[in-house]
Amino acid sequence: MHDVAQRLGVSISTVSRALRGQPGVSEKMRQRVLAQAEAMSYVVSPAASSLSGGATGRVGVLVPQIDVWFYSSVVAGIESRLRAEGLDVQLCCLPTTRERFDFFERLPLRRKVDALVVASFPLDERARTRLESMGLPVVVVEEEVEGFPGVRIDDRVAATMAVEHLLRAGHRRIAMIRTSDPEGRVWAADIARLDGYRAALSAHGVIPDDDQVIKVPWGIEGGASAMEVLLSRPDPPTAVFCFSDEVAIGALRTLRRAGLSVPAEMSVVAVDDHPMAELMDLTTVRQPVHEMGTTAAELVLSMLRGEEPESVVLPTRLVIRHSTRRLD
Amino acid sequence: MHDVAQRLGVSISTVSRALRGQPGVSEKMRQRVLAQAEAMSYVVSPAASSLSGGATGRVGVLVPQIDVWFYSSVVAGIESRLRAEGLDVQLCCLPTTRERFDFFERLPLRRKVDALVVASFPLDERARTRLESMGLPVVVVEEEVEGFPGVRIDDRVAATMAVEHLLRAGHRRIAMIRTSDPEGRVWAADIARLDGYRAALSAHGVIPDDDQVIKVPWGIEGGASAMEVLLSRPDPPTAVFCFSDEVAIGALRTLRRAGLSVPAEMSVVAVDDHPMAELMDLTTVRQPVHEMGTTAAELVLSMLRGEEPESVVLPTRLVIRHSTRRLD
Repeated sequence: MHDVAQRLGVSISTVSRALRGQPGVSEKMRQRVLAQAEAMSYVVSPAASSLSGGATGRVGVLVPQIDVWFYSSVVAGIESRLRAEGLDVQLCCLPTTRERFDFFERLPLRRKVDALVVASFPLDERARTRLESMGLPVVVVEEEVEGFPGVRIDDRVAATMAVEHLLRAGHRRIAMIRTSDPEGRVWAADIARLDGYRAALSAHGVIPDDDQVIKVPWGIEGGASAMEVLLSRPDPPTAVFCFSDEVAIGALRTLRRAGLSVPAEMSVVAVDDHPMAELMDLTTVRQPVHEMGTTAAELVLSMLRGEEPESVVLPTRLVIRHSTRRLD
Repeated sequence: MHDVAQRLGVSISTVSRALRGQPGVSEKMRQRVLAQAEAMSYVVSPAASSLSGGATGRVGVLVPQIDVWFYSSVVAGIESRLRAEGLDVQLCCLPTTRERFDFFERLPLRRKVDALVVASFPLDERARTRLESMGLPVVVVEEEVEGFPGVRIDDRVAATMAVEHLLRAGHRRIAMIRTSDPEGRVWAADIARLDGYRAALSAHGVIPDDDQVIKVPWGIEGGASAMEVLLSRPDPPTAVFCFSDEVAIGALRTLRRAGLSVPAEMSVVAVDDHPMAELMDLTTVRQPVHEMGTTAAELVLSMLRGEEPESVVLPTRLVIRHSTRRLD
C-alpha cells in the first residue's frame, strides 16, 4: 500500500480505502489505485516479497496444444531462453474456447507468474481486458493484440512470396487451402495469408476467385479433404497454396492416392518449413519458429526490466524444393 | 491484514511485520499469521503456502526436449490430466547431460512443486538419490528406476512383434537401426528393443549378426545415414527394424534417393505410430504415447493421495501398412 501510495502521490489511507472499496474515494481514483496495485503486485505482495524477494521467478506460457510442431517449437524457444535467465516456465494448454474463456475469467495464474506468453490463439476484447487486469507483462505470438507486444512473421508477405513463386512459374489457376482451429475459429495468420494470396494474384492480373479458396480445419486430414474437393471440380487448379506444411502434406496424400504426380500434375507450396517438408520435397516459406519463442522470451525479459519493447516481425524466406514446377 | 489481525486478536502492525519478515515478531507468530492469511485469502504466494506446509498445486515435468513428437505427446497427456485436477505443470527441458547433472545437484524445483515426472531420460544412481532427497513423489516415463513408479511399454515385446512380422514374411537378413540421444547415451528402451530383436531372430533359428546392427543418433538424419551404411554393404539386408518411426522416415528417404522401392526392394518396420507413419505407409508397432502421459499423471495423483501405486506397462500393437512385404 505504501509503495502504491508513493507511486500515485496519494495518502496510504486513500489507497487502503480504494482497495477495500470504502467510501471517500472517487471511482476514478479507485480504478487508478487498483491498476497500480495490480501492476506492482508481484513486488508489493507482502508474502511474496518476504519469502522470495519479490517475483515468483516463473513465466506462464499459454498454448492451445503442446503436441503440435508449431507450438512445441515455440515453447522450446521460450523455455530455453527463460531457463538461461533462471526463470521457470509454467505450461498451460487451453485447447477449447470454453477453456480459454474460463481461464481468462478465473485468471488462475494470478500471483503465480511474473509474466504471460500467449502462443498463440485469438484474444477477444474481454480476454484482453482480463489479461490486462492482472497487471503483468503479456507477450503474444503470431497474433496482434493492442497493448501487448508480440512476435510474429509478416503472414501477408509470406503468402505473397509463395503465390508469386507459382505466378512466376506461369500458373494462373491457383487455389488456396485456408484453415481454422478445431472449433472453426480463424487465426489472424490465416486472414493475412488469404490477403497476401489475393494481393499477389491481383498484382499479376489474375482476378481472385473465391471458388478456388477452401477452408478446412487445420491439419493433415483437413488438407487431404480440401484437395479432394479441389480435384472434384470440373476445372481444377494447376497449383495450390496451403496455409501450412501439415495441410500441404495432407493435400499431397490425396494427390498420391488419386494417382496424380507432384509437381507434374499439381504444384504445391506452403508455409512453415516443418521438419517433414524437406522429406516430402515440399517448396515452402520458412518461418523461424524456434526463434519466435526465444524472441517472445526476450520481450518478456525486457518487460520484466521495466522496459516497453516494440513488437518484433521476424523474416521469412522461400525454400524452393521439388513440389512446384513451371507450367508448360 | 486487518481481517487477519482481527481473527488472530493481534495488531495490524504485528501482521504487517510478520508478512514482511520484519523483526519484532516471533517465528511462531509469523507462522500463525502466514497460515491465517493463507486460509483467508486466495491471494497468497505459492512460496508461502509451501513453507507453511501446504501444497504448491504444481507438478514439475522434466523432458530432454519439448519439440519432439514423443515428448510433446507425453507432456500433452500429463498436462491435460493434471489440469483437470486443478494442478499446474511446470515444464523444464534438460537437453544435455550437463544440464541434467546441474539440475539434480541444485534441485531448483525444491519447494516449487509437489511432485516430479521425468519423461524420459536415464537417471544414474546419483540423480536417483538426489531426486529421492527431495522427499517428493517422482514418476518416471519409459525408464525403470528403482523406487520410483513409472509408465512404459514393454519394449522387448514391441521389438519382438515388429521383427516376427518380418520373419513370418520370410525375411532372414534383418538389420536393426538402434539409436542414442544426441550425446551418444543409450536409452533403456533401445537396449530392450535390441534384446527383443535378437530374441525374435534366435527363436526363428536366425543367428543374430552384430554387423547388421547400426547405432546412430536418434532422428531422421540418423536413420538416413544408417540406411546408407546398410546399403553400402556387399550383402545388404532385405528388411530393417528401426528404433522409431522418425528413424524409419530417414531410412525411407535414403532408400528413395537410392532409387530403391519400398517394400519391393526393402521392407521397413518401426515403433511409435507417429502421425507421419500413416502418411508414409509405414508398418509400425503403435505405442500409446498420450496415454503414457495421462497414466503418469494418474500415478502422480495417486502418490499425492499418499498411495503407493505400482508401475504400469501399457500395451502395444502392430499396425500393418505397406512398407513390409513377403519375401519371394
